[in-house]
Amino acid sequence: MTTLKNVWIYNTAYRAFDFGSLEFDKTITHVERQFEEEGTGAYAIIPGFIDIHMHIESSMTTVSEFSNAALPHGTTTIVADCHEVANVFGVEGLQAFMDLPSVLDVFYAIPSSVPATSAELETSGGFIDSEQVIQLCKRDDVIALGEIMNANDLFSESPNRTKRIIETFKACKPGFPIEGHCPKISGEQLSRFIAGGVDSDHTEQTPESIREKISAGMFLEIQQKSVKKETVEALCDEYLAGKFCFCTDDVMPDVLQAKGHLDAVVKQAISYGMSITEAIYASTYSPAMRMRLFDRGQIAPGKIADLLVIDDLETLHIKAIFKNGVMIYDSSNGLVTPMKLPLLPEKYLHSIKRQKIGTKDFDLSCPDGKHDILIIEKDSATTFTRKGRQSVMVQDNAFDFFASGLNVIACVERYGKESPIKPAFLKNGLKKSGAICSSWAHDSHNLLVLATSVELAVRAVNLVIENQGGIALVDEKKESFVPLAYGGIVSLEPMPKLAKRIEGVRKWLQLHGYEAKEEVMNFAVLALPVSPELKISDKGLVDVLQKRILDWRTYWNEEGKIS
Amino acid sequence: MTTLKNVWIYNTAYRAFDFGSLEFDKTITHVERQFEEEGTGAYAIIPGFIDIHMHIESSMTTVSEFSNAALPHGTTTIVADCHEVANVFGVEGLQAFMDLPSVLDVFYAIPSSVPATSAELETSGGFIDSEQVIQLCKRDDVIALGEIMNANDLFSESPNRTKRIIETFKACKPGFPIEGHCPKISGEQLSRFIAGGVDSDHTEQTPESIREKISAGMFLEIQQKSVKKETVEALCDEYLAGKFCFCTDDVMPDVLQAKGHLDAVVKQAISYGMSITEAIYASTYSPAMRMRLFDRGQIAPGKIADLLVIDDLETLHIKAIFKNGVMIYDSSNGLVTPMKLPLLPEKYLHSIKRQKIGTKDFDLSCPDGKHDILIIEKDSATTFTRKGRQSVMVQDNAFDFFASGLNVIACVERYGKESPIKPAFLKNGLKKSGAICSSWAHDSHNLLVLATSVELAVRAVNLVIENQGGIALVDEKKESFVPLAYGGIVSLEPMPKLAKRIEGVRKWLQLHGYEAKEEVMNFAVLALPVSPELKISDKGLVDVLQKRILDWRTYWNEEGKIS
Repeated sequence: MTTLKNVWIYNTAYRAFDFGSLEFDKTITHVERQFEEEGTGAYAIIPGFIDIHMHIESSMTTVSEFSNAALPHGTTTIVADCHEVANVFGVEGLQAFMDLPSVLDVFYAIPSSVPATSAELETSGGFIDSEQVIQLCKRDDVIALGEIMNANDLFSESPNRTKRIIETFKACKPGFPIEGHCPKISGEQLSRFIAGGVDSDHTEQTPESIREKISAGMFLEIQQKSVKKETVEALCDEYLAGKFCFCTDDVMPDVLQAKGHLDAVVKQAISYGMSITEAIYASTYSPAMRMRLFDRGQIAPGKIADLLVIDDLETLHIKAIFKNGVMIYDSSNGLVTPMKLPLLPEKYLHSIKRQKIGTKDFDLSCPDGKHDILIIEKDSATTFTRKGRQSVMVQDNAFDFFASGLNVIACVERYGKESPIKPAFLKNGLKKSGAICSSWAHDSHNLLVLATSVELAVRAVNLVIENQGGIALVDEKKESFVPLAYGGIVSLEPMPKLAKRIEGVRKWLQLHGYEAKEEVMNFAVLALPVSPELKISDKGLVDVLQKRILDWRTYWNEEGKIS
Repeated sequence: MTTLKNVWIYNTAYRAFDFGSLEFDKTITHVERQFEEEGTGAYAIIPGFIDIHMHIESSMTTVSEFSNAALPHGTTTIVADCHEVANVFGVEGLQAFMDLPSVLDVFYAIPSSVPATSAELETSGGFIDSEQVIQLCKRDDVIALGEIMNANDLFSESPNRTKRIIETFKACKPGFPIEGHCPKISGEQLSRFIAGGVDSDHTEQTPESIREKISAGMFLEIQQKSVKKETVEALCDEYLAGKFCFCTDDVMPDVLQAKGHLDAVVKQAISYGMSITEAIYASTYSPAMRMRLFDRGQIAPGKIADLLVIDDLETLHIKAIFKNGVMIYDSSNGLVTPMKLPLLPEKYLHSIKRQKIGTKDFDLSCPDGKHDILIIEKDSATTFTRKGRQSVMVQDNAFDFFASGLNVIACVERYGKESPIKPAFLKNGLKKSGAICSSWAHDSHNLLVLATSVELAVRAVNLVIENQGGIALVDEKKESFVPLAYGGIVSLEPMPKLAKRIEGVRKWLQLHGYEAKEEVMNFAVLALPVSPELKISDKGLVDVLQKRILDWRTYWNEEGKIS
């Protein structure tokens, strides 16, 4: 039994602090609140933060190491949607990943779009349909269906995988939340999305979308990019407490290390004018209620003693952390006992099933003469990519693409099919000579390569194959490599080391002229064929909206006929 | 598909009304909210009322007839704790009762104190322990564990039925609510009660108990007796929305008919200053969330179309009601299709297993001389009963008790044991000659009789036995009878007829000088041996707090030795 006396205790019901004392062992046994008295305690006690929409693989790490990295920031419970591991390994590897130990509590949402597209558009490693949902629902740590992205499936009259998965989940876990992803959907379409059973959204919000979606019964999960002055104002409406929470969605390793986790989102909201007591509510109680985690999220009898001892409410600085009533962290010494990663089965560490490639595998040949070719036009502010048109003059079946302001881009299939490589061109990529190849390339995690020459591309891809997964950086002078051993997407290294490596990748991209808000993620989603408008997969260029493969050589000539 | 245009639609998220239109079939398909526009609609649409703590048997009727009676008052969903039927018939009869059809949605909480005492203190018909909980949990309509009353069981270190039942329920229905009954419990005891797993309370509250209990994580179900000026003020704190709801607990038939159902509680709260928009929240959304009824309680896409069309927001007058999208009531014509009661198995209609009795069965003999006897002293303001002391002068083994200001009281066992009758005396009962006997006598529903003479008592008891359950009223001039055929506690008659009969009982009690706030219930709980301090059971006088049977002849003589 631990007792904390003369402290300020967060009162979830009244969204305020009471002076008093607190007793707990694994759970809280008693809270003595001196409602009327003024106190002089140095510490404030708040519940541990709860992040209910996030992808561990965005931090390129295991559950165990994520626990080490996120706990010191006060995150004591997460609900993870391991969409990436599922895409690489399917349910077997997903479950092996889920079984890894951690100190913070990890619950899971079933990835609902594995793969997000079809075998016609890309090759992936995993597959989730009703049968896999039934299997995963047998686990007690599965408490939600992960973000439903394909709104059109919900609107369709005919049976489809999305509807099957929702029905199966409802039958296996009645009353459990079904999470959504519905950017820019509104009006009757929004109603149909919600009536389809999906009643949360974590995409970027505006004051208008907040009002419409919450009025329509949605629960909003507010990630950092939604935390702006005007959205925070909208959320501060006194009526909205409990109707939204904060979440992280994706946090890159170096960002996690340098800037923090859910605490960073909370602090940003406070900096835009949300009161600290409302911000705590939205990062503890509200997410717990959304996930039906009735055993936590407030400091009250019977609740799990996940407690943050705050020594400065202005900065939310954490002095110490109790998890299940045990002090597991203090700010002077860090974690008492960091998690160690157990030995992992070899099969998950040797998953890049591809023979080394050569320059002849990159067929960029083209008939001689002047052509308009289809290129990916990258945007520097967003992850949007446009269908570009560029005139090139071909001689001897080739042209100097780098001199024309282009990079070669390809997604090399890595699931053992040895599929022919289908390279294409990208504008606004690397401006200095070099190549980057990554097996962390959403969602299918084939080997995405971007290069200023075919030779460099081949070297980068082969580095990733040799090392069985990771990120290769190659230029004339030197090469470097970030190992991502687990499925080619997750590092087995400690977070500080990994963070430094990813910072290195980011700097390399910057040095090579790759412009983006978040360079590493921006590069990785060039392979994501559900995000508009033109992406690369192992099958070639993907027209995202029309769901078809395009030929860069002929597209503009035939455009009139096709579209 | 039904469309309601140009109406004011309750916005649960913002606790306000928006002008707009509404489309629904069985569920709501679309809500068009014109956030910025002023409208001129005549009607306001609000969700149906949800009553999550109530006992149907308090209205002495079946689920089916209750549905007919409560629906016109806007109650579209109830969570019933059929504690009384369970006490009479056990799980078999309970399930038969639960299987009766209704138009409003009925969910069930498992009665958790059946019987509330032990076989030493009274004879009852039903029994619920782990095994019965497992059986009942197989039903989808069972969504809660009903009010846990025995706080001492929770505090005890040793195993007991209450703890077993809670553990069993948690295992069978993880995450489902466990309801509580904890009047006057506070401080560390309250913490232990809540930590025991019970986190709601529906007993009478004060502003202080509201603050303490809600701060401790409890959900409060506010019944009419808690709706006072000062408690409503406490509940109107902007932070407390969602932390409490309104409920009815017990509504007698004549009160239901004359004053309404949950709507009456809502209107009373409004009369004490709660805004109508907050009162609607607390009678629709908040109770739905407490019971994890995520499919209802707000007007939003995908939710069940249980809708009240209000034509006067001041009086909350209901113009029409839609249940599951179908108009089932309008104020001019009443219910479109009232429920008809199906044929009930005979065994539940012949449940008074007792041979007729005679005056010799009432042994009130006493040794001659002056004695101090133990009597029940009834209070007229509450249901509290005190241990009274009265000097009587006995001649020929008897005394004229009515002349001494006393009534004879007895609880005649009716479960086939033919147990000897153990009569005693009560002060402040009937002041005019007469007898009342009722098989509706909480919680065990033996035949409770109160009379000014033994002869009248015998006549009243025999009337109830002959008619197989009900309430008999007897005096020198005439006798009347209210049949309660189902288990002796539930009427098969239509509510208007039953209400009139119960009004008759109430008037009879008033005419005979029986003083109480709620005469019929006050009488019935004279047999309730869990409500302090001295009650009557078939075993005799029950010392409620010390859980023992007392002898009225010897108690005061032996008091020094016993207590």
